[in-house]
Amino acid sequence: MFERVAIVGTGLIGGSVAAALRERNLAASVVGFAPDAQHAQALGLIDMAATSLPAAVAGADVTVLAAPVPAIVELMPALATALPERGVLTDAGSTKGSIVAAARTGLGEALPRFVPAHPIAGSERSGPSAANARLFDGARVIVSPLPETSDQALVRVGAFWEALGARVIQMPVDTHDDLLAAVSHLPHAVAFALALALARRPDADEASRLAGAGLRDTSRVAASSSQLWADILLDNHVALDTARSQFDAAWIDLSAALAAGDRARVVDLLDQASRWRRQL
Amino acid sequence: MFERVAIVGTGLIGGSVAAALRERNLAASVVGFAPDAQHAQALGLIDMAATSLPAAVAGADVTVLAAPVPAIVELMPALATALPERGVLTDAGSTKGSIVAAARTGLGEALPRFVPAHPIAGSERSGPSAANARLFDGARVIVSPLPETSDQALVRVGAFWEALGARVIQMPVDTHDDLLAAVSHLPHAVAFALALALARRPDADEASRLAGAGLRDTSRVAASSSQLWADILLDNHVALDTARSQFDAAWIDLSAALAAGDRARVVDLLDQASRWRRQL
Repeated sequence: MFERVAIVGTGLIGGSVAAALRERNLAASVVGFAPDAQHAQALGLIDMAATSLPAAVAGADVTVLAAPVPAIVELMPALATALPERGVLTDAGSTKGSIVAAARTGLGEALPRFVPAHPIAGSERSGPSAANARLFDGARVIVSPLPETSDQALVRVGAFWEALGARVIQMPVDTHDDLLAAVSHLPHAVAFALALALARRPDADEASRLAGAGLRDTSRVAASSSQLWADILLDNHVALDTARSQFDAAWIDLSAALAAGDRARVVDLLDQASRWRRQL
Repeated sequence: MFERVAIVGTGLIGGSVAAALRERNLAASVVGFAPDAQHAQALGLIDMAATSLPAAVAGADVTVLAAPVPAIVELMPALATALPERGVLTDAGSTKGSIVAAARTGLGEALPRFVPAHPIAGSERSGPSAANARLFDGARVIVSPLPETSDQALVRVGAFWEALGARVIQMPVDTHDDLLAAVSHLPHAVAFALALALARRPDADEASRLAGAGLRDTSRVAASSSQLWADILLDNHVALDTARSQFDAAWIDLSAALAAGDRARVVDLLDQASRWRRQL
């Protein structure tokens, strides 16, 4: 289906793109460019590890940027010249604001061939060894075309993610950032704060031993990479501010009802929460 | 191993005690007393459904109180006279404060035969049909003997929970309530508040569709029974207040670092959280 796919960043997401391409026999060759590309090659995820960005993307039908958001931002100017004319560009960044800004200033004539994308799939694990060929099976991938994006690029990038098993949905960049703040960045921030509160207790070790399934699940994503998540939370700070305020309001309402011993109010608030959660 | 076991409350926990007794062939007969006891009997969890508390506990070696905390509190005076002299009493309440207070005022001469217990095992599901014979396999059960508790009762109740597959640990009631506030009640409150914040968004339906594994896990326990959890959170409100303050401090620290755009500080806070979570 694809002659050559270039993957920049061969960690969990990039490695999983490579693994899915291989398992589904979708690409004649897959080239990786990343600090850990040789590891990804040793694991059999990619066919070649390139030593430069131009070497990686030369001749690629599709180039996927799956590096951390700040690295993607830095690569944009180099891609302006390196990207082959017939190739399309997509990314897998969890936030879109700074990537889109960097694309606008950096991509130049290649801008219409860039289709920002965000696969809603992940794991608290990271690195090439966490790659999973089924990571995108049935997962949603949000594509957020810019006004400048060509229809042809949108169609080809959509087909690329669908070929990996994903269901593609389309929304503007702002809507993406707002929704993702609510469904991903806020839950991560809350889980990190919960784990932080427990880590700071003098009896943190005893608390660990008593952790049941509830605490394990509620805090699971706090085991994620602190570097990666610091960048995501900071990059999307405007939309996250709004989501944090919404959490604060809910938390204050629940805390006030508990402090007042108002059982009817506590039940009502928990009910609203559990009705929403049960229909997930 | 046991002649007769009485189970008051045959929902998730009581039903799972019954199922484990049966699977491990530990009791000649298991009697249930509960609004849903006939359902539990129809499911094959218990041998008999009693129509009164005295009928249920008559002749029981072990009586397990697995009803909601407020129901356990109300039953204490009736147990004072109903509990057979050679029988021991334990419970499975998630909070111990009000149960122990009710036992002290209500149990009379039966008090030395009561060993408060809390199995750290559960599920967001409830009712007899959620019963699971393996629920206590390897789970911790905290027993919190009172100064009045007899050594013999402590040994027998400990052996009972261990026979179900659990690992028994012992701690004072206050320590139990404090630790459980941190490892169970706080995570539930946080998960409920997170789900509540999302439920209140105008785009709550779209947010549901985009929910990935992170949000699903972080909010999973918010699908729990609102009635049950209102009682638990309210019953343990003193210890939960402390745990809530610890969460508030962590949340405010993280929010301030994000608002200030202080990446080093954000990474440091997330690191503390993820180090603790990774060793769980």
